[in-house]
Amino acid sequence: MSARAPRVTINDVASRAGVSKGAVSMAFNDRPGVSRATRERIFEVARELGWAPHHTARSLSGRRAGIVGLAICRPARLLGLEPFYMEFISGIESVLTERGCSLLLRLVRDLDEEIALYEEWWRSKTIGGAILVDFQQEDPRVAPLRALGLPAVAVGHPSLTGGFPSVWTDDATAAADAVRYLAALGHRRIARVGGPAGLGHSAIRARAFEATMAELGLDGRRQVSTRFAGEEGARATRGLLLARDRPTAIVYDNDIMAVAGAAVAAEMGLVVPDDVSLLAWDDSQLCRLTHPPLSALSHDVHRFGAEVARALFEVIEGTRSGALQVPTPSLAPRGSTGPPRSRTGT
Amino acid sequence: MSARAPRVTINDVASRAGVSKGAVSMAFNDRPGVSRATRERIFEVARELGWAPHHTARSLSGRRAGIVGLAICRPARLLGLEPFYMEFISGIESVLTERGCSLLLRLVRDLDEEIALYEEWWRSKTIGGAILVDFQQEDPRVAPLRALGLPAVAVGHPSLTGGFPSVWTDDATAAADAVRYLAALGHRRIARVGGPAGLGHSAIRARAFEATMAELGLDGRRQVSTRFAGEEGARATRGLLLARDRPTAIVYDNDIMAVAGAAVAAEMGLVVPDDVSLLAWDDSQLCRLTHPPLSALSHDVHRFGAEVARALFEVIEGTRSGALQVPTPSLAPRGSTGPPRSRTGT
Repeated sequence: MSARAPRVTINDVASRAGVSKGAVSMAFNDRPGVSRATRERIFEVARELGWAPHHTARSLSGRRAGIVGLAICRPARLLGLEPFYMEFISGIESVLTERGCSLLLRLVRDLDEEIALYEEWWRSKTIGGAILVDFQQEDPRVAPLRALGLPAVAVGHPSLTGGFPSVWTDDATAAADAVRYLAALGHRRIARVGGPAGLGHSAIRARAFEATMAELGLDGRRQVSTRFAGEEGARATRGLLLARDRPTAIVYDNDIMAVAGAAVAAEMGLVVPDDVSLLAWDDSQLCRLTHPPLSALSHDVHRFGAEVARALFEVIEGTRSGALQVPTPSLAPRGSTGPPRSRTGT
Repeated sequence: MSARAPRVTINDVASRAGVSKGAVSMAFNDRPGVSRATRERIFEVARELGWAPHHTARSLSGRRAGIVGLAICRPARLLGLEPFYMEFISGIESVLTERGCSLLLRLVRDLDEEIALYEEWWRSKTIGGAILVDFQQEDPRVAPLRALGLPAVAVGHPSLTGGFPSVWTDDATAAADAVRYLAALGHRRIARVGGPAGLGHSAIRARAFEATMAELGLDGRRQVSTRFAGEEGARATRGLLLARDRPTAIVYDNDIMAVAGAAVAAEMGLVVPDDVSLLAWDDSQLCRLTHPPLSALSHDVHRFGAEVARALFEVIEGTRSGALQVPTPSLAPRGSTGPPRSRTGT
C-alpha cells in the first residue's frame, strides 16, 4: 500500500560493521565466536541503523521496547542488605544494556501481588518478558502466569518451575560437597544456617545436607532457617556455638551470614578455623575481604544473572524452551576452614 | 459529552478508610501525622477505589503509570559490589511500592548515553519522572534534561545540580567532623581513601578534609582516589600503611573499602585501633558485622532513597521545587577507632 521505505536488513548491519551475517547473528544471540570489541561494534551499528533481530522485533512490537520485568518478593530493607541480588541484577543489566533494554524492578509483598503485577504489566504492554525468582515448592505463580502467555525465564530447579524455561544451579550437589569436605577435614558436628524453609532452593540444600550427613553416619538435624539477613546469621551462630555439643563447622546459605558468624566467633573468643570452621555460600567479594578470608561455595552470581537475561532473550525470540544449567558452585577453600582442634564429644 | 460516571474523590477514600481528608492528603504526601498502619489502610482503600491524588493523576496521564527512571553510569560489575546503591534502591522501592509504582533501571556507559536514554524514555512516555545521581562538577546532563522538561530529582549538593530540585546530605560537615574526631583522639597523620576525583560529592569531601586538616595545622594531602571497590580500598590501604610515615588513622568514602582496609591491617599484623584507626562512611550492616565493629560516618541510606522518591512525587505533583537536605552523616564510634598507640614521627 504505502511506498516501500528502504528496509534495513542483517546484510546492511554486517556490511557496515565489516563482518559476516553469521557474526551479527552470533553477537545478538550472545554466542561465543565474536570478540567483545566486534560484538560492541555490531551492536553500535545495529543501533545506528535501527535494526533488531527479526524475532525480537516481532515479539516486542507493540510492547515497550525492550523492558524486562523483575518482581522480588522481599521486604525492601532486606533486599538492600544482601549482596546476592545486587550482583544478580548487575549481571542482568550487563546483558540488557548491550541490547538497549532496561529492567523494570518492583518489590512485592506476596506472590498474589506479584501475579497481579505481571498480569497488569503484560496486558498493558509494559514489558516484553519477565524474570521469575525465588520459587517455592508448588509455586502459585506457575499456573496463572503460564496461562497469561508471558515470556519468562524461571530461576530455579526445573522441578520447581512448572514448565517455565529455567536457569538453575545444582544446589544439592554443592550442599553435599560442603558436607563431604568438612567431614574429610575431621568434622563430625556440622551445622547449617539456611534460608527460609519454604524457598525451593533452600529446601533442596537442606535435604541434601541431611542426606549426605546421614550417609556419613552423622546427625544432619542441626539446621536453622533464616531470611538471609546478617543479624539472623549472627543470632543463629551464637545459638549454635552456645549449645553444649557445639558444632565444629558451620555452613551458611549466603556470605553476609558467614561474615556475621565470623564476627560472633571472634566476639566469643573462638579462633577460626581451629575452634570452628565457617563455610559461606555465593562468595561475593566480602569473603575475600575478611581476615581470615572465608572459604565458600563459590559461583559467579554476576554471570548467573547475565545467563538468565540471555536465556530470556532466547525465550522471547523463540529459540529456547528447555532448562539451562549454570556451573555448580564449587568449593573455594580459604582460611576459615580447617581440621577441628579437638575432637571430643562426638 | 459522555454520561458522567460517578467520580471517586478524596472524600470517598477518607470515608471508606475512616479518616479525615487531611489524613489522606498527609499519607499521600508522606508527611508525619499518620501512623504507618493508617497510611497503609489509606493506600489500600485508594487502590481499591482507583483513586490517586489530582496532581499525580494529571502529570502521569498518558505516561506509563508510575514508572520512574534511574540510570546509573557505572560498570555493572562494580554496581553489584557496593552496598550503597542496593540500599538506596531499596529505599526508593519502599516508597514506589506503596504508590504502586516501579523503578526502571538502566546502567549506562557515559553521560551522553544517559542523556539520550532519558530523552527517549521521556518522549516515548515510558517514564513519569527520573532520579539523577552521581553529579559531576559542571555536569553535562543539566542543560539538555532541563530543556526536556523531565520532572526529576537530583541527588547531590545544590551547587552541583543546576536548578533541579535536589536531595542532599552535608558531606563537607561530615568530612570535617571525621577529621576533628580523629585529631581529638590524638591522631596527626590522617589519610583519606576517597571516591573518583571528578565526582561532585567526593570532591566536596576531599576539599573539606584538606581544609579541616589545614585548620588543625596538619597535612591533608594524604588522599587516594578510587572507584569505590573493595579491592581498591585494600590496595590503597596497603600503600598507605607501607609508607615510611604511615598514617595512624584512615577515613574511607564507603564501608566496603573500610572492611577491606581492616583485613589488610590484620594481614600486616597491625592491631585496629592501636596501630591504625579506621573510619568508614555510609555504615551498612557490614560495619557492625566485622570484629572489631567499624566506626562510621553513619547515615540511613535506605531512608535517603525513600526521601528521594518522596521528593520526586512532590516534583511530579508540582509541590516541590527547592532542595531537601537529609540528615548529615553522624559519627558512630565503635571499636575501630581509638587513640594512636605511639605518637612518634609527627
